[in-house]
Amino acid sequence: MVKQARAQLTREAIVAGAAAVFERQGYGSASIADIATAASVTKGALYFHFPSKDDIARAVIQRQHEISFSAGTAIMEQGYPALETMIRLCAGLAGQLLSDRIVQAGIRLTTEVSNFERPVADPYEDWLATFETLTSRAIDEGDVDPRVEPAILAHFIIPAFTGVQLVSETMTGRKDLRERVQQMWAILLPGIVRAERYEALKGLPELIAADR
Amino acid sequence: MVKQARAQLTREAIVAGAAAVFERQGYGSASIADIATAASVTKGALYFHFPSKDDIARAVIQRQHEISFSAGTAIMEQGYPALETMIRLCAGLAGQLLSDRIVQAGIRLTTEVSNFERPVADPYEDWLATFETLTSRAIDEGDVDPRVEPAILAHFIIPAFTGVQLVSETMTGRKDLRERVQQMWAILLPGIVRAERYEALKGLPELIAADR
Repeated sequence: MVKQARAQLTREAIVAGAAAVFERQGYGSASIADIATAASVTKGALYFHFPSKDDIARAVIQRQHEISFSAGTAIMEQGYPALETMIRLCAGLAGQLLSDRIVQAGIRLTTEVSNFERPVADPYEDWLATFETLTSRAIDEGDVDPRVEPAILAHFIIPAFTGVQLVSETMTGRKDLRERVQQMWAILLPGIVRAERYEALKGLPELIAADR
Repeated sequence: MVKQARAQLTREAIVAGAAAVFERQGYGSASIADIATAASVTKGALYFHFPSKDDIARAVIQRQHEISFSAGTAIMEQGYPALETMIRLCAGLAGQLLSDRIVQAGIRLTTEVSNFERPVADPYEDWLATFETLTSRAIDEGDVDPRVEPAILAHFIIPAFTGVQLVSETMTGRKDLRERVQQMWAILLPGIVRAERYEALKGLPELIAADR
């Protein structure tokens, strides 16, 4: 048991060290030696846990997705209406991108398609399914217009968020990220909510951006 | 003059070869030797034109941006209303992403933030300025609702398109790209056009996607 716990700690240290190195240098020029140094483990220990740099990168993405998705689950369990939940999920992920090194590295690795033989699509699939379900619920709850197709809206919001955070990183080092995510929702709402609900809902993106 | 023309051809061959190598292997693992081989030039000739891999990548991005922006200028000169022009610009760039190796490589390099010490922001700035101007014109032309703020809408559409093409590449190898760009506009239109213009305009994204 002690051995297992120690192995788990070592894996976590490697993932955290790798996240720091990938964030600083990018995947391509990061070496196993850099990651071992950043994680304060020997190269031997590192190879024991992860046979290749590809495996380490996938572990960072997996850990990031666990962090982001479990924070998302906590938001979903708070009982907000589904539309508000979607806006809160985006604001929450923006917050993680501003504060959590593993989330920063995991999202960066996911969006850098060239890093992998097969691009990493699983995290997108989880979020697409979640936002599709939430859109259906938001229609049932009377907030979203029933003419909106849940699968199609979800398959726009998730890529749009992906691009908004990417361009925010590129142009401002994420300084304008919260504001851009809020604007994304402000632009989307008049086109997707039921006309009679718009006045009541239009303030939500700003309210949620202010509520941290 | 002959010498200059030959140098220009060599540069173009290097950019085309580099685009193929970056698309296949990504920036990180592409070597100068790979690029020289793909371009059918000696490593010496390559170093004469481009001192570093970073310089080659920036030349690919610059060439891609010239290709995309001059195709965009041609669309803008056709005299369509400004809103239709924006939809056509997105459809046009989607078409280039499906057919032009240099465009594919340039966009990939631009979105892979880790490749460069300072991320490449200039191409975004050109498109943001263009879409801001077009949105203003679309308001003057009575298609877009005057409550829409041109700078804010532009700063959502360009990142959203960036994410839509990235996720399409990741999840389907761009097979669904045209359809997703069309859906992006179908989702945006009801929220941004003047209510009395919606019926007349709502068919545009589908019409333009079909018109190649």
